[in-house]
Amino acid sequence: MRHIFPLDLSRWERDVSFNIPLNYQPLSASTLPDYLAAVSVLRERLGGGPKDWTLREVSDGYLNLVYLVNGPEGSLCTKQSLPHVREDKDWPLPLDRTASEHLYWRTIGPHAPGLIPEVHHYDPELSLLAMEQLHPHEVLRGRIVAGEIYPGMSRRVAEFVARSTFFTSDFHQKQEFKHERIAELKANHVLHRIMLELVYQDPFMPSERNHWTTPHLDAFVEDFRTNGRIRAAAGRLGHKYLTTPQALIHNDLHAGAVMLTDDDLRIIDPEFATFGPIGVDLGIFIGHLLIGYFAQDGHATESDNRDRQQRWLLDEIASFWFAFRERFLQLWRDHAAGDAYLAKGFDDPVGRAVAESERARFVDMLFADAIGFAAAAMIRSIIGYSHFAEMETIADPDRKGAAEAGALSLARTFLLEPEQFATIADVIDEAPRRRRAPGCRFTAN
Amino acid sequence: MRHIFPLDLSRWERDVSFNIPLNYQPLSASTLPDYLAAVSVLRERLGGGPKDWTLREVSDGYLNLVYLVNGPEGSLCTKQSLPHVREDKDWPLPLDRTASEHLYWRTIGPHAPGLIPEVHHYDPELSLLAMEQLHPHEVLRGRIVAGEIYPGMSRRVAEFVARSTFFTSDFHQKQEFKHERIAELKANHVLHRIMLELVYQDPFMPSERNHWTTPHLDAFVEDFRTNGRIRAAAGRLGHKYLTTPQALIHNDLHAGAVMLTDDDLRIIDPEFATFGPIGVDLGIFIGHLLIGYFAQDGHATESDNRDRQQRWLLDEIASFWFAFRERFLQLWRDHAAGDAYLAKGFDDPVGRAVAESERARFVDMLFADAIGFAAAAMIRSIIGYSHFAEMETIADPDRKGAAEAGALSLARTFLLEPEQFATIADVIDEAPRRRRAPGCRFTAN
Repeated sequence: MRHIFPLDLSRWERDVSFNIPLNYQPLSASTLPDYLAAVSVLRERLGGGPKDWTLREVSDGYLNLVYLVNGPEGSLCTKQSLPHVREDKDWPLPLDRTASEHLYWRTIGPHAPGLIPEVHHYDPELSLLAMEQLHPHEVLRGRIVAGEIYPGMSRRVAEFVARSTFFTSDFHQKQEFKHERIAELKANHVLHRIMLELVYQDPFMPSERNHWTTPHLDAFVEDFRTNGRIRAAAGRLGHKYLTTPQALIHNDLHAGAVMLTDDDLRIIDPEFATFGPIGVDLGIFIGHLLIGYFAQDGHATESDNRDRQQRWLLDEIASFWFAFRERFLQLWRDHAAGDAYLAKGFDDPVGRAVAESERARFVDMLFADAIGFAAAAMIRSIIGYSHFAEMETIADPDRKGAAEAGALSLARTFLLEPEQFATIADVIDEAPRRRRAPGCRFTAN
Repeated sequence: MRHIFPLDLSRWERDVSFNIPLNYQPLSASTLPDYLAAVSVLRERLGGGPKDWTLREVSDGYLNLVYLVNGPEGSLCTKQSLPHVREDKDWPLPLDRTASEHLYWRTIGPHAPGLIPEVHHYDPELSLLAMEQLHPHEVLRGRIVAGEIYPGMSRRVAEFVARSTFFTSDFHQKQEFKHERIAELKANHVLHRIMLELVYQDPFMPSERNHWTTPHLDAFVEDFRTNGRIRAAAGRLGHKYLTTPQALIHNDLHAGAVMLTDDDLRIIDPEFATFGPIGVDLGIFIGHLLIGYFAQDGHATESDNRDRQQRWLLDEIASFWFAFRERFLQLWRDHAAGDAYLAKGFDDPVGRAVAESERARFVDMLFADAIGFAAAAMIRSIIGYSHFAEMETIADPDRKGAAEAGALSLARTFLLEPEQFATIADVIDEAPRRRRAPGCRFTAN
């Protein structure tokens, strides 16, 4: 993990509100069992008592303590926020992200059955969630790197995005719903600031937090900082992100937020949830599948050329979009209970036709938004602060740089010539053309 | 005042949170002086003591108790919320609107010197504001009806809208600013619901709250409820209103919210303030000047044909837009401190050129938004629940209907053919063509 943040984090830290509750303490492998034993719903789920339970710490990421707990009758997973970055006690972070995560689960839960982990218990004093242990699920990211395929998995992600965003949008909700939740989520402002700066600001200007494969990507980085049309497009994306609360979005829906088996899939880790453009969730997921697609060129071996994985990833991108589109439209037809396009005003033959064409218009607009947000997600994950295993596990720098250059080349065109991408077919047609030979450098377009 | 609201208000009432503080009481002419005497800043402003003060109740509108208080050394105005509609104790309204108004004043105040009344005192327990008494200011609406002119007045309104919206936008503020204030404003949800339903929903569907000059406008009303393209446009406007928090907007900026003399102008009554599209404030003001323009045909007499007033009103519409545009762009150039288009990313020759063209693009988009929101404001004020004196004081129903039909005809085209109105010149060119002979009925376009 790069420890550049603290150098540059002065503004973020200044405003941190440290509501550390009086009884807060991080639970360790030695103190967690007694805590779980005292919560009857958790004790009963595990069966037996503390002496019968096994604990395994699986914390990864920067933010949380995570334990898997197994008992004679059942299992669970605990996730507790720390008041600082996990591996750096001098880098403070407020605990409110657990309240945000809990708000997200309890808001989305009724609308996304079977698509998220079950939440058994929330303790606001300890910033602790006890949830279903997903087993034998694996994180999608690791499986992509390993060269596995999960045909059809993205249809379930599409179902999740369609349901979680539609049911929290103004097409389904009254306006008060959103204002109440924005009020609750504001306590999590440090994470919201991190997301804003890392995705929409840093990659398009010099920042100590940026890093990239050099010299391979130097020309891209220089272009993103100097090209007027790219900076204009990035400015518009950032402004749209800030001013378009269409629904409660997950806001970090990359391949690390998806856990799956061959026949089950769950979405995790909504700490960055906010009200924002629906295109953000769509774009992040599409963008990271494209990252996975380009990364395969860095993972190919003589015995496994990864052709099959690449075809699979492009298929998943297409089916993700088509499944989302169909599902979102159908949910809107069936559950139009919100303040936008009030159903009462469209309840006649002409009105129904108008509503149908407005729905199509809106979803087409989401596609255009998704292309832009996909570009932002791809760019930040290659030249910004946080990089991801798809590319980071490519050992050879030339092959890594080549794979990343392909992804950046496509993302760049998403920003510069969005009109080239009118449908998802345009995206999956264009991606193969952007694959680069190792060592390839950026040249204009 | 029409008492139709309560019939239809069940949903609004159900969710009303009656936070009536323990010490709340409406102050009357007999109890107000002792209250004022106990607040030193107010007592000193008035000079002397209660026996030296004169009080005059000037409550109008539905919502508040308003007193003008004069003392030997100074004057003030008190405005207190009632927990019900002023003339109907059975129609409850929460008191939170005074907290909203105070939030608006204290947020906008530093950025709009000389354009709003000075706030001397706020008492959250009593939901009472004591403010500068505007004297000899008159309400713009009454002066328009009376046939007065105030050359250049709209440049000050433009200055107000530019400053109040720019300085609360993401071009100037960090994202936390908005989330904190949305959280505070949510308590005022009843007023927000009233605005949403009366402006963006009712006029485009059958509602008991609608009323209009009949039979003159019957065909318009029927068209607004049945015409597919109009209902689509209204649906898009409502969705934009709900999902585009660009800035803290006044949200009720008609001619009744403007008080002026020949050389001073102040904006009042921001109870409906919310984070929304900047085009709402622009559109409401332009729309109500157009209402005033068409209304003059109903007020013309043999001795005063109101030609001069009509030319003046069109001039004010044009200068309002040009002044807003120039001022907003200049504020943005000079005070770009916000999270959108982060200044650090545009601080070089190419960046400055990009920023300038993005600013122009954004303001052009505001103009298009303003045309739509002007249409909504015009339509709701003629066929919705709340009507306004410009038209309501025209005694002859044929002349009233004709004036209203002209305004509706223009508003309708704003929705149907917005591309006809690329500049403000297109608006002031077209308005005279829509003036109708008395008794004229709607025919398609």
